[in-house]
Amino acid sequence: MNNDLIQLIMTRTSIRAFQDKPVSDETVEVLLKAAMAAPSAKNSRPWSFVVIRNRALLEKLGDSLPNAKMTATAPVAVVICGALDKALPGEAREYWIQDAAAATENFLLAVHALGLGAVWTGVHPISERIRIIKDALRLPDGIEPFCLIPFGYPAVPAAVKDKWDPSIVHQDTW
Amino acid sequence: MNNDLIQLIMTRTSIRAFQDKPVSDETVEVLLKAAMAAPSAKNSRPWSFVVIRNRALLEKLGDSLPNAKMTATAPVAVVICGALDKALPGEAREYWIQDAAAATENFLLAVHALGLGAVWTGVHPISERIRIIKDALRLPDGIEPFCLIPFGYPAVPAAVKDKWDPSIVHQDTW
Repeated sequence: MNNDLIQLIMTRTSIRAFQDKPVSDETVEVLLKAAMAAPSAKNSRPWSFVVIRNRALLEKLGDSLPNAKMTATAPVAVVICGALDKALPGEAREYWIQDAAAATENFLLAVHALGLGAVWTGVHPISERIRIIKDALRLPDGIEPFCLIPFGYPAVPAAVKDKWDPSIVHQDTW
Repeated sequence: MNNDLIQLIMTRTSIRAFQDKPVSDETVEVLLKAAMAAPSAKNSRPWSFVVIRNRALLEKLGDSLPNAKMTATAPVAVVICGALDKALPGEAREYWIQDAAAATENFLLAVHALGLGAVWTGVHPISERIRIIKDALRLPDGIEPFCLIPFGYPAVPAAVKDKWDPSIVHQDTW
Protein backbone atom coordinates (compact mmCIF):
# COMPACT_ATOMS: atom_id res chain seq x y z
CA MET A 1 0.00 0.00 0.00
CA ASN A 2 1.21 3.47 -0.81
CA ASN A 3 0.33 5.26 2.39
CA ASP A 4 1.47 8.69 1.21
CA LEU A 5 -1.10 8.74 -1.54
CA ILE A 6 -3.90 7.53 0.69
CA GLN A 7 -2.85 10.05 3.34
CA LEU A 8 -3.18 12.85 0.79
CA ILE A 9 -6.80 11.89 0.21
CA MET A 10 -7.52 11.46 3.93
CA THR A 11 -6.05 14.82 4.96
CA ARG A 12 -7.58 17.14 2.34
CA THR A 13 -9.92 19.58 4.02
CA SER A 14 -11.49 22.96 3.28
CA ILE A 15 -9.21 25.97 3.72
CA ARG A 16 -10.94 29.35 3.94
CA ALA A 17 -8.12 31.75 4.97
CA PHE A 18 -4.99 32.36 2.94
CA GLN A 19 -1.54 33.89 3.31
CA ASP A 20 -0.73 37.05 1.41
CA LYS A 21 1.55 35.04 -0.86
CA PRO A 22 1.12 34.72 -4.62
CA VAL A 23 0.42 31.44 -6.40
CA SER A 24 2.55 31.04 -9.53
CA ASP A 25 1.13 30.47 -13.01
CA GLU A 26 3.10 27.20 -13.13
CA THR A 27 1.32 25.97 -10.01
CA VAL A 28 -2.09 26.92 -11.39
CA GLU A 29 -1.29 25.02 -14.58
CA VAL A 30 -0.50 21.84 -12.62
CA LEU A 31 -3.82 22.17 -10.80
CA LEU A 32 -5.74 22.59 -14.06
CA LYS A 33 -3.97 19.59 -15.57
CA ALA A 34 -5.03 17.52 -12.58
CA ALA A 35 -8.63 18.70 -12.96
CA MET A 36 -8.65 17.77 -16.67
CA ALA A 37 -7.28 14.31 -15.85
CA ALA A 38 -10.64 13.44 -14.26
CA PRO A 39 -12.83 10.78 -15.83
CA SER A 40 -15.92 11.91 -17.75
CA ALA A 41 -18.90 10.14 -19.31
CA LYS A 42 -17.76 8.70 -22.67
CA ASN A 43 -14.65 10.89 -22.27
CA SER A 44 -16.79 13.93 -23.15
CA ARG A 45 -14.71 16.34 -21.00
CA PRO A 46 -17.67 18.72 -20.67
CA TRP A 47 -15.79 21.44 -18.82
CA SER A 48 -13.97 24.76 -19.07
CA PHE A 49 -12.14 26.91 -16.51
CA VAL A 50 -11.88 30.58 -15.61
CA VAL A 51 -8.85 31.55 -13.49
CA ILE A 52 -9.47 34.79 -11.59
CA ARG A 53 -6.56 36.92 -10.35
CA ASN A 54 -8.09 40.38 -10.85
CA ARG A 55 -8.41 41.82 -7.33
CA ALA A 56 -11.58 43.82 -8.03
CA LEU A 57 -13.25 40.76 -9.53
CA LEU A 58 -12.27 38.52 -6.58
CA GLU A 59 -13.68 41.16 -4.19
CA LYS A 60 -16.88 41.54 -6.20
CA LEU A 61 -17.49 37.78 -6.14
CA GLY A 62 -16.69 37.50 -2.43
CA ASP A 63 -19.00 40.42 -1.63
CA SER A 64 -21.93 39.14 -3.69
CA LEU A 65 -21.79 35.41 -2.86
CA PRO A 66 -22.57 34.80 0.85
CA ASN A 67 -21.21 31.23 0.71
CA ALA A 68 -17.94 32.35 -0.92
CA LYS A 69 -16.92 35.44 1.08
CA MET A 70 -13.36 34.15 1.39
CA THR A 71 -12.91 34.77 -2.34
CA ALA A 72 -12.46 38.47 -1.54
CA THR A 73 -9.21 37.76 0.32
CA ALA A 74 -7.86 34.86 -1.77
CA PRO A 75 -4.91 35.48 -4.11
CA VAL A 76 -6.61 33.52 -6.88
CA ALA A 77 -9.76 31.54 -7.60
CA VAL A 78 -11.04 29.27 -10.34
CA VAL A 79 -14.56 28.81 -11.63
CA ILE A 80 -15.04 25.31 -13.01
CA CYS A 81 -17.74 25.45 -15.66
CA GLY A 82 -19.82 22.94 -17.57
CA ALA A 83 -19.37 23.20 -21.35
CA LEU A 84 -22.92 22.17 -22.18
CA ASP A 85 -22.26 21.69 -25.90
CA LYS A 86 -20.13 18.70 -24.91
CA ALA A 87 -22.73 17.19 -22.55
CA LEU A 88 -24.28 13.86 -23.53
CA PRO A 89 -27.85 13.83 -24.87
CA GLY A 90 -31.10 12.71 -23.25
CA GLU A 91 -31.22 11.25 -19.77
CA ALA A 92 -27.41 11.14 -19.74
CA ARG A 93 -27.17 14.91 -20.09
CA GLU A 94 -26.86 15.33 -16.34
CA TYR A 95 -23.55 13.46 -16.36
CA TRP A 96 -21.76 16.76 -17.03
CA ILE A 97 -22.48 17.61 -13.38
CA GLN A 98 -20.82 14.41 -12.14
CA ASP A 99 -17.87 14.98 -14.48
CA ALA A 100 -17.40 18.57 -13.29
CA ALA A 101 -17.53 17.32 -9.68
CA ALA A 102 -14.79 14.74 -10.41
CA ALA A 103 -12.64 17.47 -12.00
CA THR A 104 -13.28 19.64 -8.94
CA GLU A 105 -12.18 16.90 -6.54
CA ASN A 106 -9.01 16.32 -8.58
CA PHE A 107 -8.30 20.05 -8.43
CA LEU A 108 -8.77 20.11 -4.65
CA LEU A 109 -6.51 17.09 -4.11
CA ALA A 110 -3.80 18.61 -6.32
CA VAL A 111 -4.08 21.85 -4.30
CA HIS A 112 -3.46 19.84 -1.14
CA ALA A 113 -0.62 17.85 -2.75
CA LEU A 114 1.22 21.11 -3.52
CA GLY A 115 0.83 22.48 0.01
CA LEU A 116 -1.91 24.94 -0.85
CA GLY A 117 -5.47 25.04 0.43
CA ALA A 118 -8.87 25.61 -1.17
CA VAL A 119 -12.59 25.44 -0.55
CA TRP A 120 -15.27 24.16 -2.95
CA THR A 121 -18.10 26.68 -2.93
CA GLY A 122 -21.20 25.36 -4.67
CA VAL A 123 -22.78 27.29 -7.54
CA HIS A 124 -24.86 25.07 -9.86
CA PRO A 125 -27.85 24.57 -9.53
CA ILE A 126 -28.50 27.62 -7.31
CA SER A 127 -29.99 30.09 -9.80
CA GLU A 128 -28.99 33.28 -7.96
CA ARG A 129 -25.34 32.19 -7.70
CA ILE A 130 -25.28 31.17 -11.37
CA ARG A 131 -26.59 34.60 -12.40
CA ILE A 132 -24.01 36.49 -10.31
CA ILE A 133 -21.07 34.52 -11.72
CA LYS A 134 -22.29 34.49 -15.33
CA ASP A 135 -22.64 38.27 -15.18
CA ALA A 136 -19.31 38.91 -13.42
CA LEU A 137 -17.28 36.65 -15.75
CA ARG A 138 -19.36 37.40 -18.87
CA LEU A 139 -19.90 33.71 -19.53
CA PRO A 140 -21.59 32.96 -22.86
CA ASP A 141 -24.73 30.83 -23.22
CA GLY A 142 -23.90 27.15 -22.83
CA ILE A 143 -21.13 27.78 -20.29
CA GLU A 144 -22.60 26.96 -16.87
CA PRO A 145 -20.70 27.96 -13.72
CA PHE A 146 -20.46 24.77 -11.66
CA CYS A 147 -18.41 25.82 -8.63
CA LEU A 148 -16.10 28.57 -7.42
CA ILE A 149 -12.83 27.58 -5.72
CA PRO A 150 -10.77 30.29 -3.98
CA PHE A 151 -7.29 28.98 -3.18
CA GLY A 152 -3.86 29.95 -1.92
CA TYR A 153 -1.35 29.10 0.79
CA PRO A 154 -3.18 28.28 4.05
CA ALA A 155 -3.10 30.97 6.75
CA VAL A 156 -3.38 28.40 9.54
CA PRO A 157 -2.90 24.62 9.83
CA ALA A 158 -6.02 22.67 8.92
CA ALA A 159 -8.04 20.51 11.31
CA VAL A 160 -8.92 17.30 9.49
CA LYS A 161 -12.28 15.62 10.13
CA ASP A 162 -12.57 11.84 10.61
CA LYS A 163 -15.63 11.00 8.51
CA TRP A 164 -15.32 7.19 8.48
CA ASP A 165 -18.65 5.52 9.29
CA PRO A 166 -18.76 1.73 8.89
CA SER A 167 -22.51 1.71 9.60
CA ILE A 168 -23.22 3.03 6.09
CA VAL A 169 -21.40 0.14 4.39
CA HIS A 170 -23.55 -2.84 3.33
CA GLN A 171 -22.52 -6.22 1.96
CA ASP A 172 -24.06 -7.62 -1.26
CA THR A 173 -27.56 -6.37 -0.51
CA TRP A 174 -29.02 -3.76 1.84
CA MET B 1 5.96 20.14 -5.37
CA ASN B 2 5.08 16.59 -4.49
CA ASN B 3 5.29 14.99 -7.90
CA ASP B 4 4.24 11.55 -6.70
CA LEU B 5 0.86 12.80 -5.62
CA ILE B 6 0.26 14.75 -8.80
CA GLN B 7 1.41 11.75 -10.84
CA LEU B 8 -1.19 9.60 -9.10
CA ILE B 9 -3.93 11.93 -10.28
CA MET B 10 -2.48 12.21 -13.79
CA THR B 11 -2.14 8.45 -14.33
CA ARG B 12 -5.52 7.21 -13.07
CA THR B 13 -7.49 5.71 -15.92
CA SER B 14 -10.40 3.31 -16.41
CA ILE B 15 -9.57 -0.40 -15.98
CA ARG B 16 -12.12 -2.84 -17.38
CA ALA B 17 -10.35 -6.23 -17.14
CA PHE B 18 -9.15 -7.80 -13.92
CA GLN B 19 -6.85 -10.57 -12.73
CA ASP B 20 -8.37 -13.59 -11.01
CA LYS B 21 -6.92 -12.38 -7.71
CA PRO B 22 -8.96 -11.52 -4.64
CA VAL B 23 -9.10 -8.07 -3.09
CA SER B 24 -8.81 -8.18 0.70
CA ASP B 25 -11.39 -6.74 3.08
CA GLU B 26 -8.65 -4.52 4.51
CA THR B 27 -8.02 -3.02 1.07
CA VAL B 28 -11.73 -2.41 0.49
CA GLU B 29 -11.93 -0.64 3.84
CA VAL B 30 -9.11 1.74 2.87
CA LEU B 31 -10.95 2.55 -0.37
CA LEU B 32 -14.20 3.25 1.47
CA LYS B 33 -12.39 5.48 3.97
CA ALA B 34 -10.95 7.46 1.07
CA ALA B 35 -14.43 7.81 -0.46
CA MET B 36 -15.88 9.07 2.82
CA ALA B 37 -13.07 11.63 3.15
CA ALA B 38 -14.59 13.54 0.23
CA PRO B 39 -16.02 16.99 0.80
CA SER B 40 -19.81 17.37 0.83
CA ALA B 41 -22.21 20.30 0.94
CA LYS B 42 -22.41 21.54 4.54
CA ASN B 43 -20.62 18.30 5.49
CA SER B 44 -23.92 16.44 4.90
CA ARG B 45 -22.16 13.19 3.79
CA PRO B 46 -25.25 12.13 1.80
CA TRP B 47 -23.94 8.72 0.84
CA SER B 48 -23.92 4.99 1.57
CA PHE B 49 -22.09 2.05 0.02
CA VAL B 50 -22.86 -1.52 -1.00
CA VAL B 51 -19.84 -3.79 -1.48
CA ILE B 52 -20.64 -6.73 -3.77
CA ARG B 53 -18.60 -9.94 -3.65
CA ASN B 54 -21.37 -12.46 -4.32
CA ARG B 55 -20.49 -14.03 -7.69
CA ALA B 56 -24.09 -14.56 -8.84
CA LEU B 57 -24.93 -10.95 -8.02
CA LEU B 58 -21.87 -9.61 -9.87
CA GLU B 59 -22.82 -11.71 -12.91
CA LYS B 60 -26.44 -10.60 -12.77
CA LEU B 61 -25.43 -6.93 -12.73
CA GLY B 62 -22.90 -7.40 -15.52
CA ASP B 63 -25.45 -9.24 -17.64
CA SER B 64 -28.24 -6.71 -17.15
CA LEU B 65 -26.27 -3.45 -17.41
CA PRO B 66 -24.84 -2.97 -20.93
CA ASN B 67 -22.46 -0.21 -19.76
CA ALA B 68 -21.14 -2.34 -16.89
CA LYS B 69 -20.56 -5.77 -18.46
CA MET B 70 -17.11 -6.03 -16.85
CA THR B 71 -18.83 -6.36 -13.46
CA ALA B 72 -19.53 -10.00 -14.32
CA THR B 73 -15.80 -10.81 -14.29
CA ALA B 74 -14.64 -8.47 -11.51
CA PRO B 75 -13.72 -9.92 -8.10
CA VAL B 76 -15.63 -7.17 -6.32
CA ALA B 77 -17.68 -4.06 -7.03
CA VAL B 78 -19.13 -1.20 -5.05
CA VAL B 79 -22.33 0.73 -5.59
CA ILE B 80 -22.02 4.26 -4.26
CA CYS B 81 -25.49 5.47 -3.29
CA GLY B 82 -27.07 8.76 -2.38
CA ALA B 83 -28.66 8.78 1.08
CA LEU B 84 -31.43 11.17 0.19
CA ASP B 85 -32.55 11.74 3.78
CA LYS B 86 -29.23 13.56 4.27
CA ALA B 87 -29.53 15.69 1.12
CA LEU B 88 -29.92 19.45 1.57
CA PRO B 89 -33.38 21.00 1.00
CA GLY B 90 -34.68 23.10 -1.87
CA GLU B 91 -32.50 24.14 -4.80
CA ALA B 92 -29.47 22.75 -2.95
CA ARG B 93 -30.91 19.24 -2.94
CA GLU B 94 -29.01 18.34 -6.08
CA TYR B 95 -25.70 18.76 -4.23
CA TRP B 96 -25.93 15.14 -3.14
CA ILE B 97 -25.03 14.24 -6.74
CA GLN B 98 -21.90 16.39 -6.66
CA ASP B 99 -20.94 14.98 -3.26
CA ALA B 100 -21.38 11.39 -4.45
CA ALA B 101 -19.23 12.19 -7.49
CA ALA B 102 -16.45 13.56 -5.27
CA ALA B 103 -16.60 10.41 -3.13
CA THR B 104 -16.45 8.35 -6.33
CA GLU B 105 -13.36 10.16 -7.58
CA ASN B 106 -11.65 9.69 -4.19
CA PHE B 107 -12.48 5.98 -4.38
CA LEU B 108 -11.01 5.70 -7.89
CA LEU B 109 -7.82 7.52 -6.93
CA ALA B 110 -7.37 5.32 -3.87
CA VAL B 111 -7.86 2.24 -6.09
CA HIS B 112 -5.05 3.51 -8.31
CA ALA B 113 -2.84 4.40 -5.33
CA LEU B 114 -3.05 0.79 -4.10
CA GLY B 115 -2.17 -0.70 -7.49
CA LEU B 116 -5.69 -1.79 -8.35
CA GLY B 117 -7.89 -0.65 -11.21
CA ALA B 118 -11.54 0.33 -11.55
CA VAL B 119 -14.07 1.87 -13.87
CA TRP B 120 -16.84 4.34 -12.96
CA THR B 121 -20.03 3.13 -14.63
CA GLY B 122 -22.79 5.71 -14.49
CA VAL B 123 -26.17 4.87 -12.98
CA HIS B 124 -28.07 7.96 -11.76
CA PRO B 125 -30.05 9.56 -13.42
CA ILE B 126 -30.67 6.77 -16.00
CA SER B 127 -34.00 5.35 -14.82
CA GLU B 128 -33.56 1.84 -16.28
CA ARG B 129 -30.15 1.39 -14.60
CA ILE B 130 -31.50 2.71 -11.30
CA ARG B 131 -34.35 0.18 -11.38
CA ILE B 132 -32.05 -2.77 -12.14
CA ILE B 133 -29.68 -1.94 -9.29
CA LYS B 134 -32.38 -1.06 -6.75
CA ASP B 135 -34.05 -4.41 -7.45
CA ALA B 136 -30.84 -6.48 -7.41
CA LEU B 137 -29.50 -4.96 -4.17
CA ARG B 138 -32.95 -4.51 -2.56
CA LEU B 139 -32.27 -0.85 -1.85
CA PRO B 140 -34.92 0.85 0.28
CA ASP B 141 -36.71 4.04 -0.71
CA GLY B 142 -34.46 7.06 -0.26
CA ILE B 143 -31.30 5.14 -1.17
CA GLU B 144 -30.46 6.09 -4.77
CA PRO B 145 -27.82 4.12 -6.68
CA PHE B 146 -25.39 6.73 -8.01
CA CYS B 147 -22.71 4.64 -9.74
CA LEU B 148 -21.39 1.10 -9.95
CA ILE B 149 -17.62 0.55 -9.73
CA PRO B 150 -16.22 -2.92 -10.54
CA PHE B 151 -12.60 -3.15 -9.39
CA GLY B 152 -9.68 -5.51 -8.91
CA TYR B 153 -6.07 -6.00 -9.93
CA PRO B 154 -5.60 -4.88 -13.56
CA ALA B 155 -5.26 -7.65 -16.16
CA VAL B 156 -3.13 -5.48 -18.44
CA PRO B 157 -1.13 -2.25 -18.03
CA ALA B 158 -3.25 0.84 -18.57
CA ALA B 159 -2.81 3.34 -21.40
CA VAL B 160 -3.17 6.82 -19.92
CA LYS B 161 -4.83 9.60 -21.94
CA ASP B 162 -3.36 13.12 -22.08
CA LYS B 163 -6.45 15.30 -21.68
CA TRP B 164 -4.75 18.68 -21.09
CA ASP B 165 -6.30 21.42 -23.23
CA PRO B 166 -5.09 24.97 -22.54
CA SER B 167 -7.68 26.37 -24.99
CA ILE B 168 -10.46 25.81 -22.43
CA VAL B 169 -8.75 27.93 -19.77
CA HIS B 170 -9.78 31.59 -19.56
CA GLN B 171 -8.33 34.45 -17.51
CA ASP B 172 -10.57 36.66 -15.32
CA THR B 173 -13.43 36.80 -17.82
CA TRP B 174 -14.45 34.74 -20.84
